[in-house]
Amino acid sequence: MIQDDVTVAPETLDLLRQVSTATITTQLIKNHGLRSRSIRGVKPIDPARAKFVGPAYTLRYVPAREDLSLGGKRPLRVNPAQTAIDAIPAGSVMVIDMNGDTDVGALGDILIARLVFRGAAGVVADGGMRDIDPVRQMTLPVFCRGFGAPPSFASLLVAETQGVIGCGGVLVIPGDIVVADADGVVVIPRYLADQVARDGDEQERMEAWVRRKVDAGAPVGEVYPPNHRYLSEYQAWVAAGRPEGG
Amino acid sequence: MIQDDVTVAPETLDLLRQVSTATITTQLIKNHGLRSRSIRGVKPIDPARAKFVGPAYTLRYVPAREDLSLGGKRPLRVNPAQTAIDAIPAGSVMVIDMNGDTDVGALGDILIARLVFRGAAGVVADGGMRDIDPVRQMTLPVFCRGFGAPPSFASLLVAETQGVIGCGGVLVIPGDIVVADADGVVVIPRYLADQVARDGDEQERMEAWVRRKVDAGAPVGEVYPPNHRYLSEYQAWVAAGRPEGG
Amino acid sequence: MIQDDVTVAPETLDLLRQVSTATITTQLIKNHGLRSRSIRGVKPIDPARAKFVGPAYTLRYVPAREDLSLGGKRPLRVNPAQTAIDAIPAGSVMVIDMNGDTDVGALGDILIARLVFRGAAGVVADGGMRDIDPVRQMTLPVFCRGFGAPPSFASLLVAETQGVIGCGGVLVIPGDIVVADADGVVVIPRYLADQVARDGDEQERMEAWVRRKVDAGAPVGEVYPPNHRYLSEYQAWVAAGRPEGG
Amino acid sequence: MIQDDVTVAPETLDLLRQVSTATITTQLIKNHGLRSRSIRGVKPIDPARAKFVGPAYTLRYVPAREDLSLGGKRPLRVNPAQTAIDAIPAGSVMVIDMNGDTDVGALGDILIARLVFRGAAGVVADGGMRDIDPVRQMTLPVFCRGFGAPPSFASLLVAETQGVIGCGGVLVIPGDIVVADADGVVVIPRYLADQVARDGDEQERMEAWVRRKVDAGAPVGEVYPPNHRYLSEYQAWVAAGRPEGG
Amino acid sequence: MIQDDVTVAPETLDLLRQVSTATITTQLIKNHGLRSRSIRGVKPIDPARAKFVGPAYTLRYVPAREDLSLGGKRPLRVNPAQTAIDAIPAGSVMVIDMNGDTDVGALGDILIARLVFRGAAGVVADGGMRDIDPVRQMTLPVFCRGFGAPPSFASLLVAETQGVIGCGGVLVIPGDIVVADADGVVVIPRYLADQVARDGDEQERMEAWVRRKVDAGAPVGEVYPPNHRYLSEYQAWVAAGRPEGG
Amino acid sequence: MIQDDVTVAPETLDLLRQVSTATITTQLIKNHGLRSRSIRGVKPIDPARAKFVGPAYTLRYVPAREDLSLGGKRPLRVNPAQTAIDAIPAGSVMVIDMNGDTDVGALGDILIARLVFRGAAGVVADGGMRDIDPVRQMTLPVFCRGFGAPPSFASLLVAETQGVIGCGGVLVIPGDIVVADADGVVVIPRYLADQVARDGDEQERMEAWVRRKVDAGAPVGEVYPPNHRYLSEYQAWVAAGRPEGG
Repeated sequence: MIQDDVTVAPETLDLLRQVSTATITTQLIKNHGLRSRSIRGVKPIDPARAKFVGPAYTLRYVPAREDLSLGGKRPLRVNPAQTAIDAIPAGSVMVIDMNGDTDVGALGDILIARLVFRGAAGVVADGGMRDIDPVRQMTLPVFCRGFGAPPSFASLLVAETQGVIGCGGVLVIPGDIVVADADGVVVIPRYLADQVARDGDEQERMEAWVRRKVDAGAPVGEVYPPNHRYLSEYQAWVAAGRPEGG
Repeated sequence: MIQDDVTVAPETLDLLRQVSTATITTQLIKNHGLRSRSIRGVKPIDPARAKFVGPAYTLRYVPAREDLSLGGKRPLRVNPAQTAIDAIPAGSVMVIDMNGDTDVGALGDILIARLVFRGAAGVVADGGMRDIDPVRQMTLPVFCRGFGAPPSFASLLVAETQGVIGCGGVLVIPGDIVVADADGVVVIPRYLADQVARDGDEQERMEAWVRRKVDAGAPVGEVYPPNHRYLSEYQAWVAAGRPEGG
Repeated sequence: MIQDDVTVAPETLDLLRQVSTATITTQLIKNHGLRSRSIRGVKPIDPARAKFVGPAYTLRYVPAREDLSLGGKRPLRVNPAQTAIDAIPAGSVMVIDMNGDTDVGALGDILIARLVFRGAAGVVADGGMRDIDPVRQMTLPVFCRGFGAPPSFASLLVAETQGVIGCGGVLVIPGDIVVADADGVVVIPRYLADQVARDGDEQERMEAWVRRKVDAGAPVGEVYPPNHRYLSEYQAWVAAGRPEGG
Repeated sequence: MIQDDVTVAPETLDLLRQVSTATITTQLIKNHGLRSRSIRGVKPIDPARAKFVGPAYTLRYVPAREDLSLGGKRPLRVNPAQTAIDAIPAGSVMVIDMNGDTDVGALGDILIARLVFRGAAGVVADGGMRDIDPVRQMTLPVFCRGFGAPPSFASLLVAETQGVIGCGGVLVIPGDIVVADADGVVVIPRYLADQVARDGDEQERMEAWVRRKVDAGAPVGEVYPPNHRYLSEYQAWVAAGRPEGG
Repeated sequence: MIQDDVTVAPETLDLLRQVSTATITTQLIKNHGLRSRSIRGVKPIDPARAKFVGPAYTLRYVPAREDLSLGGKRPLRVNPAQTAIDAIPAGSVMVIDMNGDTDVGALGDILIARLVFRGAAGVVADGGMRDIDPVRQMTLPVFCRGFGAPPSFASLLVAETQGVIGCGGVLVIPGDIVVADADGVVVIPRYLADQVARDGDEQERMEAWVRRKVDAGAPVGEVYPPNHRYLSEYQAWVAAGRPEGG
Repeated sequence: MIQDDVTVAPETLDLLRQVSTATITTQLIKNHGLRSRSIRGVKPIDPARAKFVGPAYTLRYVPAREDLSLGGKRPLRVNPAQTAIDAIPAGSVMVIDMNGDTDVGALGDILIARLVFRGAAGVVADGGMRDIDPVRQMTLPVFCRGFGAPPSFASLLVAETQGVIGCGGVLVIPGDIVVADADGVVVIPRYLADQVARDGDEQERMEAWVRRKVDAGAPVGEVYPPNHRYLSEYQAWVAAGRPEGG
């Protein structure tokens, strides 16, 4: 019922790799009225490895029932998380709805090793992760709410893969474009990805110019956003081909 | 993947109507090891109208995206909540996963009027309700976390009906047996409903006898649970056909 | 800097007295894009005395410093809350920013008796109230987050009266129109009050008609909102002067 | 190590029965610097039955371990809660440290029936209670944070009786004087009980006089607290033997 | 109404630079009865750059209203945050009341670059910051509650500059002395700054001596605080001019 | 009443030093049904110094009463925390029940220096620590919920040492075996320590083999847990003496 079938070009993803989540959220709010696209409460396990861009591949957990869990009286025979991890397309971002549970860890080093092998771009979970020490040694950027030593089956079961989910207060449709950096994780509807990428890129070029002015002493009340005089100066600089030092 | 196709007999539902949620949770924990079957944080809108028993009929909300909501740029044309409410079987309990959101109200008086017309047994939502004054005048027992005047589309969208959900920390599979009273709401897996009903009924008969003993001055350390002497007395009373005043 | 000097006509306030907060929040979101105008987390002390409409008169508390409080080493000589309460115009609603603190009670029976004498329309505080038993006997509708026996100076000081405040997540400018009922409290910018009152009134007339249809068995998927057929029927009924029983 | 062996006279308890918790907390803060004596987050099950005064009799719960609980592999043979309830002296208030847990109910109707038989004055728990419907029919005032159908052994074990505990942010030493009404519950150290009772009684006599003045139109800025003129008037009224209507 | 006009000498600020926040909070509680002067929930963006001392320069946010925000229908023309940042005196600490909101970032790299240019000493906000990667490269110590990519106008508006605010549970009057290190941020009333600086400095000299004793095996029960024997030894050491190795 | 007198062999502690908390929690849930043995919400001050194993030595704080604290009117003469710290046996882990309070710091550098001198293995507190900069320079692994500059007496008092406590939702009996690493802290009942150590060691050997298979491309759906084919291969590898590269 909730769908978005627009195809996103590889060039759009490349352009988004140059744009910060601070810029993208500004674009989504100011130009498109989307105020709730930043996933709440997640942090990168390694702040130095927080950047990625890719389409969302979703997993949804629900509360466990003790008899259905590993070690219970009627354990489920198939673990959909494993099937999903074995099938994730290269470049995708696994987005996990844990309903905020940080008492357990959704994925440990073995499942994340498989995501690395499959070429996943990143992981975002609004709950806990485990095996943090080995995971920190691996190349995959992982955002989560905390660390939990117990396995996910201690309190959660996978209900569904590739469904529409909520993650940290954000609606995530499989295929939405997920962008992450040190500030956090933002989710762009596919039909807006191209416009947000181009407008965001232009915003960042102007802000880099503004930052140089501010570093040189320009008051933010005049230059950010630029008043008439500064806007003319900026436009002249753009017309001149954005010469270095400008 | 998570399923439970056992059929529950009408007699079982009738028997469960005699048993309190305090007793049912005791049975689920002590005899079946199920510790997480009581929905957290919900209260009846009217404490004097809190009792119901029936199979779960589920609805799942996710966070809204402003452009998909009523009044947005790309509003969804179909509202699955309406379809579900028009189709709910008589005797069912609508169980709603709102992820705890109490800033909005999931259902107002018009939708609840339709549930009354359809013969629903009750409503449980781990979020807010609205139109509380007219709803209080209606016959349907409703449990929720709070009251929110804004309509659900202010922050939520329906993602799915009749799927596996979490509600207040409890796994709910469509068809699970939902039992409510002033203490709260408990969800019984179908395959356990009959046994829980019968064992719970027996537990309550014994506890009524214990209560009479305690009111008469018996120390709880001897009678609750009954020690050897009191157990003999109880068994004699049962053997005698549970004569009144016993 | 944040201002709104529009005058609101008494007829608008009268019309708003006929409209529920559920309707007003729907109008504010759907027609004006204002999603955050419902005060979070407050409840009426007496659900049977929850209705009022009036302009906001604001009070802002900040955390206390022990030496400035009653009994401290440098107690403040003037209590701006008293000055404000002695000066509140008849018909106004006192809106109090307590930053969510429910460990104390902002107002007790003596201060509320003075508000009654002054003719205040209501009180809303995103924190605690005290002297609940005598306050329950009084005629003033009071919304709060909880009850706190300790006096406000145990953890709070008044910083300002009639300033711009936040209350339960809502921006409140002195003079904003505050409307309350059992669902909660909504705050309308003055410049929108007249339009919201008229559109809300029309929405409620249609919904009353819809409710009668639903009570008679119409599926909500067809009548709420009305499809083509029902809309024609509704318009004919309006054209006929809304005859009773319609 | 933390002790208070002062004996509290029955007359002091009688006087405290006339004084509200709002007054007592004011006395404790203003005259004795004790800011944290009001138990946070608890409410009476029945607001019309919220008043009691008596010495504290304490019970401390800690998190459960599944094997030690009823139904576990190594269940404890003695339940100290039962021993405590069978031994509580008449007039005492059972104060229970549940560490805020509202997922379970500490006491149900059978244990509370025993407290009634023993003549307990009240119960305060910073967690949940169960069997709410029958408990509401009983005469004992009970304050708690919420209702939880599951039995306490679902997540808690009793660690100790009559020890020093924390309850809702308040240090409670066995024997402390506990006073409750609709505003909440306050705990007075024994060595201060007599002075707080007498000073609180005098404060309430003056505030009743102030309230009459305010009801008659006196501004709170002049009469609460009384300025020079009103203070003289009050003192004259006291000197005259507090004649009615004063 | 709440004021403190004492002038703080530069020597006092210099002395406070030698004293830890752990020592200052001990002084404020033990000698002045001020228990609530440590800002709750904030952390330095870079723990290695957490130290600063300076007078408070305040900014107060309130919840946004969508029409007043950038991109709304009636955007405010003046942003008081910019005016404040352009005017902040060198050596000041910007203290921001965001009411705990971490969904957005109050300041990004351009505004912080301007604070650096103006010579600000530090920033403390009880909410989020953005552009974390470039901000980490800058020299200004920043304390906040979290990181939020969305711009502040997504949920907040500036209501006021240089007013009395609450920040993380602490009353902050413009000009109060703010001291920060890895343990957190403490706010000293001006009239106490000199005494706290001198007493804190003496406390730290003694504790350095105690630490050497503990490292050498002295039991804390004897030396911290020093008993009679250790106190004599300490006083002799002070009298001897605090020789090294003491 | 709650006791566990089993003696744990030094070899068991040595073996547990090789096993991760992720593995231990899996063992406790799957084989022993203990779901709540991981302390919630605590993190190591230095993630690179998070590993330790040792028996629990417990300390319990309760809320402070201002008159009993340092600087109050009736300060306690003995501080049981000091006595406990002076007496802790080498190799023990100090586990502190602060009821989640992070507004203060339980221990600072002087008390931790004493723990280092005594040879303690680690510290876990479900609240705050202070003097973080010097503590970071010390060798003792410390887990806590946050940093609080104010001394513990600002809001807490020690009620007891070596009693049964709750810490972060876990029942801790003095002598329980505490194991910590970057994922968190888990508490093992003594009577299970040996079995958990041996089974956990075997689980980790198999998982290391699985990880090598996954790194080489084996789908987790086949190898984790191993299906029939992989299990045979694993058993053959074990039978061959676990040759390197296997």
